[in-house]
Amino acid sequence: MKKLNIGIIGYGFMGRAHSNAYRKVNNFFDLKYQPVLKAICARNADNAKAFADKWGYESIETDWRKLMERDDIDLIDICTPNNTHAEIAIAAAQAGKMILCEKPLALNAPEAEKMVAAVESAKVPNMVWYNYRRCPAVVLAKQLIDEGKLGRIFHYRAKFLQDWTINPDLPQGGAALWRLDVKAAGSGVTGDLLAHCIDTAMWLNGTIDSVSAMTETFIKERKHQLTGKVEKVGIDDACAFLARFSNGALATFESTRYARGHKALYTFEINGEHASIFWDLHDLHRLQYFDHRDEGRVRGWRSIHVSDGDQPYMKNWWVPGLQIGYEHSFVHQVADFLTGLAERKPARPDFKDGLATDYVTDAVLKSARTGQWEKVKKVK
Amino acid sequence: MKKLNIGIIGYGFMGRAHSNAYRKVNNFFDLKYQPVLKAICARNADNAKAFADKWGYESIETDWRKLMERDDIDLIDICTPNNTHAEIAIAAAQAGKMILCEKPLALNAPEAEKMVAAVESAKVPNMVWYNYRRCPAVVLAKQLIDEGKLGRIFHYRAKFLQDWTINPDLPQGGAALWRLDVKAAGSGVTGDLLAHCIDTAMWLNGTIDSVSAMTETFIKERKHQLTGKVEKVGIDDACAFLARFSNGALATFESTRYARGHKALYTFEINGEHASIFWDLHDLHRLQYFDHRDEGRVRGWRSIHVSDGDQPYMKNWWVPGLQIGYEHSFVHQVADFLTGLAERKPARPDFKDGLATDYVTDAVLKSARTGQWEKVKKVK
Amino acid sequence: MKKLNIGIIGYGFMGRAHSNAYRKVNNFFDLKYQPVLKAICARNADNAKAFADKWGYESIETDWRKLMERDDIDLIDICTPNNTHAEIAIAAAQAGKMILCEKPLALNAPEAEKMVAAVESAKVPNMVWYNYRRCPAVVLAKQLIDEGKLGRIFHYRAKFLQDWTINPDLPQGGAALWRLDVKAAGSGVTGDLLAHCIDTAMWLNGTIDSVSAMTETFIKERKHQLTGKVEKVGIDDACAFLARFSNGALATFESTRYARGHKALYTFEINGEHASIFWDLHDLHRLQYFDHRDEGRVRGWRSIHVSDGDQPYMKNWWVPGLQIGYEHSFVHQVADFLTGLAERKPARPDFKDGLATDYVTDAVLKSARTGQWEKVKKVK
Amino acid sequence: MKKLNIGIIGYGFMGRAHSNAYRKVNNFFDLKYQPVLKAICARNADNAKAFADKWGYESIETDWRKLMERDDIDLIDICTPNNTHAEIAIAAAQAGKMILCEKPLALNAPEAEKMVAAVESAKVPNMVWYNYRRCPAVVLAKQLIDEGKLGRIFHYRAKFLQDWTINPDLPQGGAALWRLDVKAAGSGVTGDLLAHCIDTAMWLNGTIDSVSAMTETFIKERKHQLTGKVEKVGIDDACAFLARFSNGALATFESTRYARGHKALYTFEINGEHASIFWDLHDLHRLQYFDHRDEGRVRGWRSIHVSDGDQPYMKNWWVPGLQIGYEHSFVHQVADFLTGLAERKPARPDFKDGLATDYVTDAVLKSARTGQWEKVKKVK
Repeated sequence: MKKLNIGIIGYGFMGRAHSNAYRKVNNFFDLKYQPVLKAICARNADNAKAFADKWGYESIETDWRKLMERDDIDLIDICTPNNTHAEIAIAAAQAGKMILCEKPLALNAPEAEKMVAAVESAKVPNMVWYNYRRCPAVVLAKQLIDEGKLGRIFHYRAKFLQDWTINPDLPQGGAALWRLDVKAAGSGVTGDLLAHCIDTAMWLNGTIDSVSAMTETFIKERKHQLTGKVEKVGIDDACAFLARFSNGALATFESTRYARGHKALYTFEINGEHASIFWDLHDLHRLQYFDHRDEGRVRGWRSIHVSDGDQPYMKNWWVPGLQIGYEHSFVHQVADFLTGLAERKPARPDFKDGLATDYVTDAVLKSARTGQWEKVKKVK
Repeated sequence: MKKLNIGIIGYGFMGRAHSNAYRKVNNFFDLKYQPVLKAICARNADNAKAFADKWGYESIETDWRKLMERDDIDLIDICTPNNTHAEIAIAAAQAGKMILCEKPLALNAPEAEKMVAAVESAKVPNMVWYNYRRCPAVVLAKQLIDEGKLGRIFHYRAKFLQDWTINPDLPQGGAALWRLDVKAAGSGVTGDLLAHCIDTAMWLNGTIDSVSAMTETFIKERKHQLTGKVEKVGIDDACAFLARFSNGALATFESTRYARGHKALYTFEINGEHASIFWDLHDLHRLQYFDHRDEGRVRGWRSIHVSDGDQPYMKNWWVPGLQIGYEHSFVHQVADFLTGLAERKPARPDFKDGLATDYVTDAVLKSARTGQWEKVKKVK
Repeated sequence: MKKLNIGIIGYGFMGRAHSNAYRKVNNFFDLKYQPVLKAICARNADNAKAFADKWGYESIETDWRKLMERDDIDLIDICTPNNTHAEIAIAAAQAGKMILCEKPLALNAPEAEKMVAAVESAKVPNMVWYNYRRCPAVVLAKQLIDEGKLGRIFHYRAKFLQDWTINPDLPQGGAALWRLDVKAAGSGVTGDLLAHCIDTAMWLNGTIDSVSAMTETFIKERKHQLTGKVEKVGIDDACAFLARFSNGALATFESTRYARGHKALYTFEINGEHASIFWDLHDLHRLQYFDHRDEGRVRGWRSIHVSDGDQPYMKNWWVPGLQIGYEHSFVHQVADFLTGLAERKPARPDFKDGLATDYVTDAVLKSARTGQWEKVKKVK
Repeated sequence: MKKLNIGIIGYGFMGRAHSNAYRKVNNFFDLKYQPVLKAICARNADNAKAFADKWGYESIETDWRKLMERDDIDLIDICTPNNTHAEIAIAAAQAGKMILCEKPLALNAPEAEKMVAAVESAKVPNMVWYNYRRCPAVVLAKQLIDEGKLGRIFHYRAKFLQDWTINPDLPQGGAALWRLDVKAAGSGVTGDLLAHCIDTAMWLNGTIDSVSAMTETFIKERKHQLTGKVEKVGIDDACAFLARFSNGALATFESTRYARGHKALYTFEINGEHASIFWDLHDLHRLQYFDHRDEGRVRGWRSIHVSDGDQPYMKNWWVPGLQIGYEHSFVHQVADFLTGLAERKPARPDFKDGLATDYVTDAVLKSARTGQWEKVKKVK
């Protein structure tokens, strides 16, 4: 088994999710590579040390540039706020490192284009952490669509609803709340949540041609944790858009952090000529499936408990009926990345896929400003 | 169209449900007979009059014996407390009237045997109002079982859970609460609710051979509305029993009025070799169906919205997707009774079926007393 | 009890639903008025006669103008295709008849404006059959919103999904399929289904300011039943739109007849500051409710079985746990109309409310053509 | 941090689940102890070696007695078939090792009594892997009950339904199918599945006094993998029993491997005076809760997504809305065991709790033989 030395930057929510995946993947999957937790980088040395102890990283760094210089690092994992992705990724590419970058790929598409150019020029393996592609139920949906079970697709609808920013006393900015700070995040729900919806949608149903969007910032001002002052909120609290796919399907997308009762309700539904599919992150181990070719009297939406050995990834886990959870999507993504390395068939979504999503989110944000339908740029 | 003159006795919950069915049935079903609301009988003339006005009954009586003497009455509908069924039904049979009797057929099986003897001797059409057999989803279940879609049946489980008698201040007896008075009701949940479960079960899965039961009366004393005194509660508040069907299936049955959160949760589930079925009165327009012969990856419980024209009774109502409710089961029962009359193929459940259920409830109550498994007597 | 003589025009799906409501309403509600089924009007005398026999109408007409001349008709009920509403309603108003008109009020808002002018000039009671306002669960939602339980409303989303026109061999036009013929229907899902969604939405959440829409006709040509020729399909098969309410809430609306697995899936969800609500026509007797003020550990979406006496309309029906169905919404609407008459507090939605909805559907259809956000005209 | 050296015996399904828990627990919980994967023992050296490589065990053994002699082993984890638990556990106790034993504790209560005597005599920490006690939703149920939110408990009902042995061609015995071999397993669903239900039930609702049971073996003969011959099946394929708890609650329990459509459907429901609770292993991250003290109009079963930081164990995992899975219950059990060690407050269920469950399963199996109600022996 080959060792693959990981240097991770950032130790927040995603730093933990990725570290867990690196540690577990070889226990459950037979792979040619084994990730080694070589270094964790964070500006604060104490925090870096504590994280290294917790997860078994062998060393720490406080300047990410040091990681680029180290020969014992094969792969850079970027888990920092969105406004740092481009600079780090480009430097990593130039240093010849493989790169796994958190989503969205960049603050905007022009930045993302530079990142794509950098990894293509350097020919380094690269991937973006759109992990929901790796939920077994979502992969099952992909299989069914690719096999033609749905036939022509008429409709796609996706939502990502949360409710954690309704309180106007919640501040913006800083380590925990950088997602509310437009400088660090680039946008609000559009880049954070709709980006997930868009990545899945284009994977399942192809490219998006045009969009008409609206955004809203319900709470206009919040105290900023870095300046200590009440400042204008620059992000979108909510965004909804209409879209037309290249295959003729109509779509609606919506995301908000103001939907009481929903913590992380990412759902999508696809209506095809013969069959329909529905998935919900709150019960990610299930797929709802309706097949019109079933006998008429007994047609109905099937609630499929995706936990059998013949369902994607599941033969590697427990026994039928026993569900896996959120974190497993990251384990699957690492497994697929490592398999891609071994087989020289790079796993996706890669940076170009990440750029494609950024083209959509840029068009969405533009449409919300112009009040017009906007064309979506396509990745070449 | 032939007229069928109805004389109904009792004007409570069931009096209304039946009257509604008689009034509606010809609007929705093409039948050879038309029920005519001829007379309502109740001891209190004012109440009888008010009910007649509300529903369009042509006349009232205050003594049910008068109904038996009237030539303009073809059919007696018994909607009175259980302890009156036998006397009225036997008199009606002797008077040559058709009889529709509320469930359970009688206070106990010996009484019910006499009722069966009376209708057989008089050769009068007769039926018991086990209306849940007529919910479209339940009929669909019956079709699937009879067609062999489930294969060998391994398990049957039924529950009927309510929560309306938890309050110890609720009195017993009188017009509204006779179901809590053992003299009027004969038993508690066993005769009232489990009787429904048993009727459906034997219709779907054949006869029951033996049972082992337990009962409980959680609130031991309640004020009696007729005497004004606190009296011992004679009914069973809860009853659960194990059973073995003649076809080898194992069963559990349970009913209670002490299950918080359930108003009328009658559910049954049947597990067969190839397929399983689940139904729930709280969503009576749906049938849950699992078919193991579906392709493995996409097997799941189907939630069937029973509202299409190819599903039982539904072509007579609205359009697909629009549900019917509780009261429609009575309309269907009347339609089937009238069709049975016209075609000389009597609809069921008839009194013999009602007796079969009483044999089971008698065995259940006996087992609860003896602590032994008890054999169930079979109808000859 | 006063008699109210009904003259109904049309005997299709809605003719049945209304007739059933007129026949049942006094059995279940205590009212000052009693509808009398005086006349049914249809161009084909045989069909009119058969319908009259089935439902107990006292007479038939084959020209609706005759109804206007009859003194024994108090109320005209319009159940004909959309392109006939205006002419009939204006004539009825001029004849001094009360008018109950099927939805949408007219082919378009200019027509509807004339209808409003006619009923206002004639001062005749008038109502539009947006029946879903009368589902008990929807009324419960209205109560909760009006009591402030949701607080500030952030989001509204509604869908009405069907799947009955996916087959390209389905023809357009004629008695059963006039909804697919743009001349008879005016539009497709926008006027047929979204009109329902919009009516409910404005009732629950106030007026809509602006919309951005897209429509699609998936099957471009269908055989026309009247001409026998393959003709261009003029209706919208699907429509989705973004909207902004006057109260600042964001909304998404969508309807289609190409969503496999959905027969009549009308759903709406409302997210407020404190609480959220969800309703689904496929289980119309339930309301989903989430209240953030519940204790944190045990917060969850409550599935409310709307069948208790303290819930809207339900004390008039059966007992807790026993559901009503689709047709009951019409009974409630008649009950409310009659109560409004008796108390001189006209029930709604009246023609002005119907016009308000037509203003929205007109703006939606315009936006779909222009690709722009369109302002919605307000009723004065 | 203190090291705790683990010696595990067996490498099947449970060997993996436990190993995963040992490896992960310190990444997510702050503990005084850290498990070290010291040795894996299995009769086949190659298999042991492969497992050690996969999971990082430092050494292997092929005779479990060797583990007892090693000073570098602190804790013996027994993951072998039921018929070996007693001998291994007693030897481990005599060797002064801590013991974590898979469930059920023993083949029967007399064996289990000896195991209890051994650990009590040796004063070694001990625990039984009834892991479902550690699902966050189940712990939340425990909190609610202990706080009195349910009030007096009237009913308890539990089921554990599977469908994996319906095929008569499935053999019995051997590594993968020892659960079908009565010699290795002791019983069928009673010891395997109902034992889980009983453990949870007594934890939540106290001791069980008496039971009335029935069992069935649907497939009477199966080929035995060890002998190669068709042999009588000695286990129970299905078992259902009635029970009375010491607190007066009535209960039904049922388990089978012949329920089509259910892979591992462990559910329980508890009905109390004020509130009810329902849980389902197929969606283990949810708890259904009904509270009668909610306002009448908006009472309903709440579907609680147990993923918030204020819900049991969840602050150690991800963010609200993101579910954990089956394997996490084992991580929690290890965390609690280690915390118990550090704080000298032993975690449970310990061997005495395991014995209590064996007393119930023995009474159940006896009742199924005698056809009588049987008293349940209580742990002293």
